[in-house]
Amino acid sequence: MSLSKTVRKLQVESPVPADIDIANSVEPLHIAEISKELNLSPTHYDLYGKYKAKVLLSVLDEVKGSGDGYYVVVGGITPTPLGEGKSTTTVGLCQALGAFLDKKVVTCLRQPSQGPTFGIKGGAAGGGYSQVIPMDEFNLHLTGDIHAITAANNLLAAAIDTRIFHEASQSDKALFNRLCPANKEGKRSFNDIMFRRLKKLGIAKTRPEDLTPEEVKKFARLDIDPDSITWRRVMDVNDRFLRKISIGQGPDEKGMVRETGFDISVASEIMAVLALTTSLADMRERLGKMVIGNSKAGDPITADDLGVGGTLTVLMKDAINPTLMQTLEGTPVLVHAGPFANIAHGNSSIVADKIALKLVGPGGFVVTEAGFGADIGVEKFMNIKCRYSGLTPQCAVIVATIRALKMHGGGPEVVAGRPLDHAYLNENVGLVEAGCVNLARHIANTKAYGVNVVVAVNKFSTDTEAEMNAVRKAALAAGAYDAVICTHHAHGGKGAVDLGIAVQKACENVTQPLKFLYPLDVSIKDKVEAIAKSYGASGVEYSEQAEKQIEMYSRQGFSNLAICMAKTQYSFSHNASEKGAPSGFKLPIRDVRASIGAGFIYPLVGTMSTMPGLPTRPCFYDIDLDTTTGKVIGLS
Amino acid sequence: MSLSKTVRKLQVESPVPADIDIANSVEPLHIAEISKELNLSPTHYDLYGKYKAKVLLSVLDEVKGSGDGYYVVVGGITPTPLGEGKSTTTVGLCQALGAFLDKKVVTCLRQPSQGPTFGIKGGAAGGGYSQVIPMDEFNLHLTGDIHAITAANNLLAAAIDTRIFHEASQSDKALFNRLCPANKEGKRSFNDIMFRRLKKLGIAKTRPEDLTPEEVKKFARLDIDPDSITWRRVMDVNDRFLRKISIGQGPDEKGMVRETGFDISVASEIMAVLALTTSLADMRERLGKMVIGNSKAGDPITADDLGVGGTLTVLMKDAINPTLMQTLEGTPVLVHAGPFANIAHGNSSIVADKIALKLVGPGGFVVTEAGFGADIGVEKFMNIKCRYSGLTPQCAVIVATIRALKMHGGGPEVVAGRPLDHAYLNENVGLVEAGCVNLARHIANTKAYGVNVVVAVNKFSTDTEAEMNAVRKAALAAGAYDAVICTHHAHGGKGAVDLGIAVQKACENVTQPLKFLYPLDVSIKDKVEAIAKSYGASGVEYSEQAEKQIEMYSRQGFSNLAICMAKTQYSFSHNASEKGAPSGFKLPIRDVRASIGAGFIYPLVGTMSTMPGLPTRPCFYDIDLDTTTGKVIGLS
Repeated sequence: MSLSKTVRKLQVESPVPADIDIANSVEPLHIAEISKELNLSPTHYDLYGKYKAKVLLSVLDEVKGSGDGYYVVVGGITPTPLGEGKSTTTVGLCQALGAFLDKKVVTCLRQPSQGPTFGIKGGAAGGGYSQVIPMDEFNLHLTGDIHAITAANNLLAAAIDTRIFHEASQSDKALFNRLCPANKEGKRSFNDIMFRRLKKLGIAKTRPEDLTPEEVKKFARLDIDPDSITWRRVMDVNDRFLRKISIGQGPDEKGMVRETGFDISVASEIMAVLALTTSLADMRERLGKMVIGNSKAGDPITADDLGVGGTLTVLMKDAINPTLMQTLEGTPVLVHAGPFANIAHGNSSIVADKIALKLVGPGGFVVTEAGFGADIGVEKFMNIKCRYSGLTPQCAVIVATIRALKMHGGGPEVVAGRPLDHAYLNENVGLVEAGCVNLARHIANTKAYGVNVVVAVNKFSTDTEAEMNAVRKAALAAGAYDAVICTHHAHGGKGAVDLGIAVQKACENVTQPLKFLYPLDVSIKDKVEAIAKSYGASGVEYSEQAEKQIEMYSRQGFSNLAICMAKTQYSFSHNASEKGAPSGFKLPIRDVRASIGAGFIYPLVGTMSTMPGLPTRPCFYDIDLDTTTGKVIGLS
Repeated sequence: MSLSKTVRKLQVESPVPADIDIANSVEPLHIAEISKELNLSPTHYDLYGKYKAKVLLSVLDEVKGSGDGYYVVVGGITPTPLGEGKSTTTVGLCQALGAFLDKKVVTCLRQPSQGPTFGIKGGAAGGGYSQVIPMDEFNLHLTGDIHAITAANNLLAAAIDTRIFHEASQSDKALFNRLCPANKEGKRSFNDIMFRRLKKLGIAKTRPEDLTPEEVKKFARLDIDPDSITWRRVMDVNDRFLRKISIGQGPDEKGMVRETGFDISVASEIMAVLALTTSLADMRERLGKMVIGNSKAGDPITADDLGVGGTLTVLMKDAINPTLMQTLEGTPVLVHAGPFANIAHGNSSIVADKIALKLVGPGGFVVTEAGFGADIGVEKFMNIKCRYSGLTPQCAVIVATIRALKMHGGGPEVVAGRPLDHAYLNENVGLVEAGCVNLARHIANTKAYGVNVVVAVNKFSTDTEAEMNAVRKAALAAGAYDAVICTHHAHGGKGAVDLGIAVQKACENVTQPLKFLYPLDVSIKDKVEAIAKSYGASGVEYSEQAEKQIEMYSRQGFSNLAICMAKTQYSFSHNASEKGAPSGFKLPIRDVRASIGAGFIYPLVGTMSTMPGLPTRPCFYDIDLDTTTGKVIGLS
């Protein structure tokens, strides 16, 4: 077999140039060429410029009968604040599989938020010679999915406050007359979305005039308890001053001031819905049943109760189609959804993975990344994403760095923006060996799902042979299928060929079925405790507020949902400074919230910031447009 | 000559079906076919799906030498709250020119805000058999330009509050060290955007270490006066509860609470910049010099002072390319920018018009719409848009309805959502004749710019022959070049053929050069008074606040900008209930603000709402997605 026609040979330089310079040095192929290699015809996608295309969900209907490729998830050990190169490894592995090992392969990645891109972190297209291009389009608007989420989320927010406002000044009858106005012939009628509410209320009548005054009141007055509202507004900007605000202070809003706040857009439940949905019809149902708070009587109020579920779906109808891009070496990438990895599940979309698995077909590979450490990302990949998708992974890659292992072994604190301690720049096999307890627990936890685990050591120039051998030894001892040293950052796919071979073997030799950590049909607390044990906790402590919420969600009929822990990524425990593999601690649950449309309950372990801030000198200082060439400069 | 290949014959039904049903009944052509008819090759545009393409600004360089087509602006008389069909007439006229009169024609329209689409008003793609399709794509995300504006606007807002926050807790030196950090070799440097600030401050030094402590302070400490901040956040949603808010109430923001608010996105200065810019380089300069407020010493602080002008340009780099769509009869449409018509200038973009004029070439037609009545829309089209573009229109169409003329003649109040009084449904020539004073003043004002004025009477089924004759007579008496009855809503382009012929003659027989209402190099007050006179005012009254602001802007060197009046569209005067052609009143100026990047000063005549609200039963109740076909239903 000859290599795919789109494969591009890289000219690698040393030392590795800046990411944007590497990205700009390669002329991307027209995305139609990438599509063609995946056997997609122009009816299967919509172009968005020359280098991006939205693959239409309808492709799934066409390929329904064909077989799936291998399904590989990339997780990581507990990271340092600098990140250990999980996205880069995901891209590098795919470049190896596609450009060197002649496999059909699709990389599935999350769409990054624009907030961090302009703040501290910079972009998320991978790095060095393992990147998605065009890197600026990947990091900026892409094909507008996050903007669609922002628009939908905020329309729902406006609908909530406006409804409370209008209910406050109108009688039941006036409200009802406005909701079901008479037409020219004096006839009233319910429309489709109103029948959803009538059904929920158990009112079987179909003509507005047949409702009793009591039913009119039940139907027309949502009676939302302002203190119960959990729906916040969102913005795809790091705007810390919006974390806590008071709204409604204008004279026309008649003193109906309320405290609320903004989250960053990727923290919206609508992002989680996008990532977990499987069809337009399913998305319509999920968006409609999102709960925004309770009525004063304690009943959950949904988007459909507010009459807006259909419009939310219309706003999201294009966003459900994943975006096709390419790597530096010309292999295909599907970018789709990027839910927060703590209050949500941190994995790219089910539909992208499903489409990709069909497109690569049997013997091909789909590599998808799970955000944060494997304790969070892989756990949620398995118990939430795979449970809802019905897909079965064969292999999990766990990315480790010598740097992070040294930190877990007792090395000094690693702080973003500060120079690294010399312990991290010089050989110290002892620290590495000690830190492997963290890797070992991630391996054991991940293996328990029934997949083969391959450890990828993302090599830095300062890492030594002895250090890397120590990791390999520890990984194999902990039950890894293989452990491989990778240099894809410096060498592109060529640097991850060994990893590609190991992953292929791991996929071909699975012996176990997929096993979840917990069944859905046990109590919320049983599920939380199963996850806590995987962290090394000896038990769970619930705050009074958490107990109250669990009781409420159980009463409302939501106890059979999956659990999505909102926990720090910097430790197995709730305490970010506890490195290695802590055990015997009690995991404290401060509060419990729910994303009913997305389909999970999320216990808060500690305080999660859902709106980042900007530093004194944000990345944006360096970014500009070369107005002669139209090229973006300074993006990192 | 044969008609353009893309022309499509309409099957017209009576009575006219709902807009969305007409729109959905026609299968749009692939936009590549529309492009081809305009002699655009695939290198000239980026596809966004099958029915939208962004025409690249670089097209302008290629066609630099060729001639322009005729340039027609569509304005209206002072409208009722129901609207008089200006967009519909714009589209109908173009369908007539392109599909029946065999002319090269491009319609230039504003992109509608999504807020009103889901609120009361519904979409803005025209109506009946004169529409832009696909109507749902036109009304919803389009190609993401408004989303880009939202993102850019709010990044700047976040940069302002964060900068104040960081300056509050850091010494001059610490601030400077963070802004110009030392690299690995201990060397500091200024980057490009910092040199802009240094230049503004008159500091000629190039090495950070050469700055005196006084210069370090001047450079690093913007010292923004929180009370002077005019930059607000935006959202493309009708969210009245965000009109006035308090931000910074989170514990981490240390009590730096500030009152501010959100406007709807199309009210952002960045939208006005997009509409008035002429190139990437020009946009970069305009975005950088947008003023967000003053320092405590009273100096204007710009986006570039905050280090973010380059990033704003990067966020807007695709938005600068207009979006190509099509009418129901297959003629091309460029949709681009949609600034508010009161606090901004309410006209679609200069770049779209420029590209269109070259694409149609000599003998072809570009028809562009000016928002609100001609007193506002056409005045700003001439004195702001044409002044900055250097383009010269030949003809202005003024759209009138019998309904609106009756209102101006003394008919009862017209209220959206309430049934029309019988005066509007039965013949009443007297009311029509009396109302023509409004039309006559719009004609006289518009003629004064040197263009020929054609009146288009947008006919409703209840209008009578005698009423229409009265309008024709009055229009010609007031100096109109012609006055024509149109039925494009019911018949498509066929219903506007007479209008097309009249417009063609008007364009071919211009005798006057373009004359502005005021020169730029007089005082702010002189310019305001020139405009006030065109309204019929006998003079202007300034509030104390307005006087203060005029003094400040003059002192800051901004008095040579154009004037953009923020006045009600419902009267020539400041009082919406004064119909007809009021005169002799004093025009009150409550406040004066400025959009320095866009290039105008805007006096506020009364209170302008820049954030609409939602009604009790918003349009969104009727909108849903048919999840089987993927089609939008219920959009109006």
